[in-house]
Amino acid sequence: MAEVLKLDKSNFSKWYDDVLRYAEILDDRYPLKGVGVWMPYGFKALKLMMRIMENKLDETGHQDSYFPIFAPASIFAKEADFLKGFMGEALRATKIGRRDLDEELVVRPTSETIMYYMYSMWIRSWRDLPLKLYQVVPIFRWETKMTRPLLRVRELAKFKEAHTAHATAKEAEKQIAEGIDVYKQFYDVLKIPYVILKTPEWDTFAGALYNYDFFTVMPDGKGIELASVINLGQKFAKAFDIKFRDKDKKEKYVHQTCYGISERTLGAAISIHGDDKGLRFTSDIAPIQVIIIPILGSKQDKKVLAKCKELKKKLERQFRVDLDLNLEKTAGEKFYHWEVKGVPIRLEVGPRDLEDQKVTLVRRDNKQKTQVLEPKAHAEIEELLNKVNETLNKEGKAWLKSMITIAKDEKDAKAILDKKGGIVKLLWCGESKCGQAIEAKLAGGALGINEKEAAKGKCVKCGKTAKFHLHFARTY
Amino acid sequence: MAEVLKLDKSNFSKWYDDVLRYAEILDDRYPLKGVGVWMPYGFKALKLMMRIMENKLDETGHQDSYFPIFAPASIFAKEADFLKGFMGEALRATKIGRRDLDEELVVRPTSETIMYYMYSMWIRSWRDLPLKLYQVVPIFRWETKMTRPLLRVRELAKFKEAHTAHATAKEAEKQIAEGIDVYKQFYDVLKIPYVILKTPEWDTFAGALYNYDFFTVMPDGKGIELASVINLGQKFAKAFDIKFRDKDKKEKYVHQTCYGISERTLGAAISIHGDDKGLRFTSDIAPIQVIIIPILGSKQDKKVLAKCKELKKKLERQFRVDLDLNLEKTAGEKFYHWEVKGVPIRLEVGPRDLEDQKVTLVRRDNKQKTQVLEPKAHAEIEELLNKVNETLNKEGKAWLKSMITIAKDEKDAKAILDKKGGIVKLLWCGESKCGQAIEAKLAGGALGINEKEAAKGKCVKCGKTAKFHLHFARTY
Repeated sequence: MAEVLKLDKSNFSKWYDDVLRYAEILDDRYPLKGVGVWMPYGFKALKLMMRIMENKLDETGHQDSYFPIFAPASIFAKEADFLKGFMGEALRATKIGRRDLDEELVVRPTSETIMYYMYSMWIRSWRDLPLKLYQVVPIFRWETKMTRPLLRVRELAKFKEAHTAHATAKEAEKQIAEGIDVYKQFYDVLKIPYVILKTPEWDTFAGALYNYDFFTVMPDGKGIELASVINLGQKFAKAFDIKFRDKDKKEKYVHQTCYGISERTLGAAISIHGDDKGLRFTSDIAPIQVIIIPILGSKQDKKVLAKCKELKKKLERQFRVDLDLNLEKTAGEKFYHWEVKGVPIRLEVGPRDLEDQKVTLVRRDNKQKTQVLEPKAHAEIEELLNKVNETLNKEGKAWLKSMITIAKDEKDAKAILDKKGGIVKLLWCGESKCGQAIEAKLAGGALGINEKEAAKGKCVKCGKTAKFHLHFARTY
Repeated sequence: MAEVLKLDKSNFSKWYDDVLRYAEILDDRYPLKGVGVWMPYGFKALKLMMRIMENKLDETGHQDSYFPIFAPASIFAKEADFLKGFMGEALRATKIGRRDLDEELVVRPTSETIMYYMYSMWIRSWRDLPLKLYQVVPIFRWETKMTRPLLRVRELAKFKEAHTAHATAKEAEKQIAEGIDVYKQFYDVLKIPYVILKTPEWDTFAGALYNYDFFTVMPDGKGIELASVINLGQKFAKAFDIKFRDKDKKEKYVHQTCYGISERTLGAAISIHGDDKGLRFTSDIAPIQVIIIPILGSKQDKKVLAKCKELKKKLERQFRVDLDLNLEKTAGEKFYHWEVKGVPIRLEVGPRDLEDQKVTLVRRDNKQKTQVLEPKAHAEIEELLNKVNETLNKEGKAWLKSMITIAKDEKDAKAILDKKGGIVKLLWCGESKCGQAIEAKLAGGALGINEKEAAKGKCVKCGKTAKFHLHFARTY
């Protein structure tokens, strides 16, 4: 008997839990808060997503590497701001079996200290620069706040962190631009709408000069940070003594950047693209792009099944294809099942299709049906996958646009956050004091500013000339 | 100035360290014993190796998944033998920052307990069987013994562990055969010679019925276990209450198997295939299969460089190719550098090649040079890569054969282990008492038996009729 599931995206929190469980993305019943088990279907989507990122990094001269999970406590503590920022959520191993370790080991919440310890040995000369490494690894942030699968977890299964070192501040800035560009392309492929904001000074990454974050808005109206691109300047270089002999024979500290994303991005894709029938995967991360369903119950069953198998073989050269041969479910139950799982295209073969030498294709995004001649199936599927992506892209962009509001004052902003949520923009003079005061009033975090966007008017707090729109949201 | 390195494989221990460092496989200067940093070149080889395994598992119906790194101590302790076997080397996290955790967390030394906790929820009916999952993840074994990079480490960066559950003992046995077959194919692709032995009873995996191990012999004569295929029977099923409702409506415990490999396999490939000039990668795991080196210093330099770039573009559609454009090194220094790094094929382009519309190809395994017309380069490279693989395969097989000796008695066996090393075989009655007594005498571990191999004669210990050859080696 097929499980019957009533999905209703307007109750997002329940919808999200139901969909993750039913679609077999992640099982959150593991007995550690904020730690889930990735099931094969969900993990495939995550791997596909990360591969897009890895390819973009490889193409831009980054190299994949692997650094240890544990840092001796002494190394972890080398950069003071970083230590302060992360020590409260960092797990510590203190024993082997029942014996105490000589030195406590910190489980990485992110790998700056671990990597830069090695960078100080690897970087000697200007010839060693730029150094552009990344790794895709589990990290651990034992935060006490509300956890949510994929979105706010204690064990991140796949954290992609890139760490670069450069000879000059200018090159580091160029790298920031490249990092942002890579992320833009990534989110564009994934059809996830975003805004890019420079983080306010008082919320800058621990140990950094400044950072840019990618934000989107979730179906419940909460903002969420998807990615961060960080200019570390020379603070870590000085803490870890990462110096090089330049062409002018002088010893100089390197300039560093880092940027990271995680499975949170998949959580956002699932949330933003899904509908009342379940997931809607874009083609690039869909674990299955085409699900073939035989329409059985006629004298033609044998032929229908043979045709389905033949089609699977042909199509899987180009697409990720599966064939649902479950004999205990009706075709209708199968339709429902694969809709929840978000497969972009359903291919049906029934006796009528057989007769016409056609196949029936159904889009997940809008249920549109097309019958095409079998030899045209390949081209048509490719076309339809693009169309599904385009729908999700348009809807996502429209959604984010609808959730960004310019407020005229704090009261207005608070009302918007209370009722509608999303991101609100307020005119701001640029002073931290004002920004933080507004934050407190709104019970919503300041996400940052778009430096390129003109701001005309006066700061809603102090009344001085506004320099920017400061963006606020209640966030995950 | 190129670093000059004198390699001598007869001093294997030094050779191994030098090669790992120079070829940029792994940097072992990270300040934790037995924990190394994978550099991009080495990590690429490791990923290529794991992908071969992953593909073979996918083809045989296994599914990739991801389970947590930490187990609550109570779960870790559920199977008594397993706990006894692993607790002494398992790291424990006890704090977040400076606060104590409510329950200590065990860092996985392998994932049986973590996975089977979930299996008990996932498996309900015969329809859920067989369940065949795997994951490729870091694991941690904080052993106190001598550590060696890749071969005996405390953090394994990529441990592939497959865990299956079945309705009957017979199906579990079939799965053991499939596991062994997958591993055979894997080591055959890698051209690593092996013997498969059933582990003696007293050394069976903690919590298992029996296991088969793949062994090879390292250049220093020590034996090394590369892979383990384990029949867990129903012990874990009972400890974790993994039951299913069978077709006959009865509740039954599942039968389980597991099998694992790690980066140790790459360490063995490096060790067995390398020579006095450095690494010799087989084509399937070579991070670079073809290195293009321009022969500069003539009036044709510009044309030579243009041709090299053109060739790179063409060849990289089919092969992993790099072009060495370093202007501070002579061609000779480059030859040397890429030989140490084990690139199977060197492609040279000089003014003479240009004139003849040819390229020069040099094999890493035996330095043989061939000049071929440019349009034939693709086919020739493919052919030569196969030949390199064949050399390494033959040499490896001959090596292992030469290192397995039948000894007539314990004294003889000990002398062989003392002088030559490798694996020695002794006639054995099959009784644990005799086997363990021989072990003690030889100062070498009993690896196991080949059940299919006939044994004629008497047990070297008790004089009763021998049933098997028991294999011994001093091991990593």
